[in-house]
Amino acid sequence: MKAVGFKTSLPITDADSFIEFETDKPTPDGRQLLVKVKAVSVNPVDFKIRQNSAKDTVLEQPKIIGWDAVGVVEAVGDAVSLFNVGDEVYYAGDITKPGSNAEFQLIDERIVGRKPYGLSAEAAAAIPLTALTAWEILFDRMRLSVERDRTKTLLIIGGAGGVGSIAIQLAKKLLGLTVIATASRPETIDWCKKMGADIIVNHRDLVAEVRNAGFHYVDYIVDFVDANLYWDAMVELIKPQGHIASITGSSVPVLLNKLKNKSVSFSWEFMYTRSTYQTDDMIEQHFILDRVAELLDEGVLKTTHTHTLHGLTADNFRQAHAQLESGKTIGKWVISF
Amino acid sequence: MKAVGFKTSLPITDADSFIEFETDKPTPDGRQLLVKVKAVSVNPVDFKIRQNSAKDTVLEQPKIIGWDAVGVVEAVGDAVSLFNVGDEVYYAGDITKPGSNAEFQLIDERIVGRKPYGLSAEAAAAIPLTALTAWEILFDRMRLSVERDRTKTLLIIGGAGGVGSIAIQLAKKLLGLTVIATASRPETIDWCKKMGADIIVNHRDLVAEVRNAGFHYVDYIVDFVDANLYWDAMVELIKPQGHIASITGSSVPVLLNKLKNKSVSFSWEFMYTRSTYQTDDMIEQHFILDRVAELLDEGVLKTTHTHTLHGLTADNFRQAHAQLESGKTIGKWVISF
Repeated sequence: MKAVGFKTSLPITDADSFIEFETDKPTPDGRQLLVKVKAVSVNPVDFKIRQNSAKDTVLEQPKIIGWDAVGVVEAVGDAVSLFNVGDEVYYAGDITKPGSNAEFQLIDERIVGRKPYGLSAEAAAAIPLTALTAWEILFDRMRLSVERDRTKTLLIIGGAGGVGSIAIQLAKKLLGLTVIATASRPETIDWCKKMGADIIVNHRDLVAEVRNAGFHYVDYIVDFVDANLYWDAMVELIKPQGHIASITGSSVPVLLNKLKNKSVSFSWEFMYTRSTYQTDDMIEQHFILDRVAELLDEGVLKTTHTHTLHGLTADNFRQAHAQLESGKTIGKWVISF
Repeated sequence: MKAVGFKTSLPITDADSFIEFETDKPTPDGRQLLVKVKAVSVNPVDFKIRQNSAKDTVLEQPKIIGWDAVGVVEAVGDAVSLFNVGDEVYYAGDITKPGSNAEFQLIDERIVGRKPYGLSAEAAAAIPLTALTAWEILFDRMRLSVERDRTKTLLIIGGAGGVGSIAIQLAKKLLGLTVIATASRPETIDWCKKMGADIIVNHRDLVAEVRNAGFHYVDYIVDFVDANLYWDAMVELIKPQGHIASITGSSVPVLLNKLKNKSVSFSWEFMYTRSTYQTDDMIEQHFILDRVAELLDEGVLKTTHTHTLHGLTADNFRQAHAQLESGKTIGKWVISF
């Protein structure tokens, strides 16, 4: 089968930062599906792994990355019970396994959902990683519920990116929260409003911006940009007994103690925790993806897909990664095969 | 009225570390109750404030500390609606206000509960601060529930102290958790078992101790000893998607990032957050104390009271603080007037 990958970590401007190659089509085993991939989307985790996983080394076999995918089940392992050959599926994959930037991919059925019926492969490919991340952060990590949290306020740092775009929608449509999102350019401001944000603030001078908008404190904060950079602003803005969550990781130690007098909670969300640790509740990702598919088909949620490139080529992946590395992407870029 | 306090922060071995003095009996206003205090208990927060609040200075008026109290309502402010003169009450007070180490004390009715009917003043005085802390950490910060968490495991670091003793009980009796508590001396091990702990481990070499007891990971950890000291052990032992909480504060920055790949949450619990920030839900402490009183009267919970000193004297407070500073106290010491 054809695949796109890399043998060494190179800047995206380098012609060899992605290469095309042929490799064996894999065979499914146990609960694995073999999926013929029709479209994939790119996420920041993709370029972080491209930049770091083969630094100062040349791999013998090229590494296939990319995890968001839409495709058709081509064959199933002997323990598969959730899907049949011919089913259209979508998923965000498992970061410990080969990725979706290839004609075919193996994937554990417990982290796969049925593709939304009403969406094109491109529109659906934009969804899985970001929806799982946003869903897990709001419902599994912060344990928000419509009964308790309907009247609460949520600040989303990074509203126009992939996860921000779907997080705004989930927070508005499923939880009824008042959503304040950061955005600074006219086009990202418009996009966040289209996703459903109630109030837009500039990320520069965040504390003053939020307070000028009429909120001394916010009940909840989710950060999709940089937990270290926004630490002091989050400490200042979070309401006593509030909850902060982030997906970014933190490169330096933090003064956690600053949250103590307010009895604040902090959660990390890493969408690959369930598959990496093969947790007992790994199948939750199957249920979340199926529920998100329903919500997309019912029109409650909208796809965040904004741009498509056509063809499983190294050139398309270089273009998509370069765009994502710019930090200026609105919504999600998709590559269809 | 008579009170015990201090004008300067001194070692507890110093005769002037506590002094007796006369001061005006205060008058209740708004939602305040004037309570005639009958018994108080001592908590680590008391000696931390004694040691630090008048360092290198001499206050004009002696400072009255101590917050846990049992007493009788002597007079009420004009906006009081929850209590009447003559009611027996218990409470953990407000750290921003004068404390309970005095004949009379003013207290906002929203953070006061009715004293458990079946308990002596001494047995009841042991409860409020520790029960509020343990209740808030398990139910408000970690949001545990019997429906979701009955089969889960909780590691309690510091099982035999005041908060640990009541946390063991709440976790066993109200949530049905499997409780692993740390204790290292024969008498603290016995005490933790009496409180209901399923498994006792030594805090030294905590990771190996918990794993030898048959638990590779635990779902939840609450730390009542030192969040910095146990950070790496907690990082190691916490289950993917688990939750850690602590009451101790953290004197140095922490490597929060170590919790990221497991998508772990961390909460601070500070029992004085609600009263310090006058939160909208401050009255929750009234409801929690009333519920705890019911549970004590029904025999579901047991008092953690272990020792009584008699008399509102500087000497008794010196003794009680010295005991607490030793770090070897089992359960709670009470001073009755």
